[in-house]
Amino acid sequence: MTFISFEGPEGAGKSTQIGRLVQRLKVQSIPHTVTREPGGTPLGTRVRDVLLDPELTIDPLPEFLLYSASRGQLVTNVIRPALDRGEVVVCDRYADSSLAYQGFGRGLNAGLLRGITAAATGGLWPDLTVLLDLDPVIGLERAARRGQPDRLERADLSFHQRLRQGFLQLAEAEPTRFLVLDATLDEGKLEKMIWEAVQSRLPASQS
Amino acid sequence: MTFISFEGPEGAGKSTQIGRLVQRLKVQSIPHTVTREPGGTPLGTRVRDVLLDPELTIDPLPEFLLYSASRGQLVTNVIRPALDRGEVVVCDRYADSSLAYQGFGRGLNAGLLRGITAAATGGLWPDLTVLLDLDPVIGLERAARRGQPDRLERADLSFHQRLRQGFLQLAEAEPTRFLVLDATLDEGKLEKMIWEAVQSRLPASQS
Repeated sequence: MTFISFEGPEGAGKSTQIGRLVQRLKVQSIPHTVTREPGGTPLGTRVRDVLLDPELTIDPLPEFLLYSASRGQLVTNVIRPALDRGEVVVCDRYADSSLAYQGFGRGLNAGLLRGITAAATGGLWPDLTVLLDLDPVIGLERAARRGQPDRLERADLSFHQRLRQGFLQLAEAEPTRFLVLDATLDEGKLEKMIWEAVQSRLPASQS
Repeated sequence: MTFISFEGPEGAGKSTQIGRLVQRLKVQSIPHTVTREPGGTPLGTRVRDVLLDPELTIDPLPEFLLYSASRGQLVTNVIRPALDRGEVVVCDRYADSSLAYQGFGRGLNAGLLRGITAAATGGLWPDLTVLLDLDPVIGLERAARRGQPDRLERADLSFHQRLRQGFLQLAEAEPTRFLVLDATLDEGKLEKMIWEAVQSRLPASQS
């Protein structure tokens, strides 16, 4: 019934904040489904393995099409059914990631990406998108500390700077959907701000 | 320089005829590249494994997007470079397969499929498409004799009938590009007809 996505670069703390949000939903006994992109379905998991394989060369448009395939399967088989059951759906990355990474990052045409996204998702967009904004220099340091960088993380700094600007432009264009937060803030403080935004999107019976 | 694709259902004899054509090209010392869809690149091979896995559920549009991802990578990394080197490219299936399988077979919108195909291939279409037309009842019998049916082969008969009509409609719309042949004809006879069509598409220096 309420669809929430988390966006932002590697190392911004999406997993931590999703964990904290889910804990809040549990405490309040609010039915919910947690999923992620790419992945979330048997097909998506296989596509994820392909996308994150550092040995593979993948051109920008094929890359986008693989993300879209995973996304389409996820919407039809996981997200829509959960929303129809009246659940809150929390998704780690969604279509904004593709618009930022493949559009702003790799330079693919935004109209093309939006058209394919609309087809793949049936036009489903989140009610709330939490953007954890982070200076890419800090993000890459954080990600590196967590171990082996994957293919995305190894891309160069200017790519990550275009990516950040892309996310911020997407947020600026849809201020009602987006909640932009400084990812360097205290985790507990971020959790509280996110929870307030989530509550304001829940139907009256749940908030 | 000359791009040739082979289309038709499972069991129509595409592999046999491609083998015979390649033998002819070799005898004439005509430089050529043989490839196939899905596949033909490291990415395509991985995507092929996903698409042909009978354990996976894949919705029609995600299926099309996966084929398109493989196709895009193949065009950029194999087909275009070979054409630029002046070679004849022989491809086992190309975009017509997606238009037939996911369009006519699964009912996806043709305009959507053509738009995504144009983006993925940069608008590259074969100079000659050999369609080996076969009654699906015969095709499925032939395929079954060769062993375990894969996911596509297990689809029902009415799907295969829509598929056949789809291929024939595509051919009817582009009579110059398509050569439609009765796949039950003698192999040697088919080989000769295909070779004549190929020769008529080669530049004067090679034919």
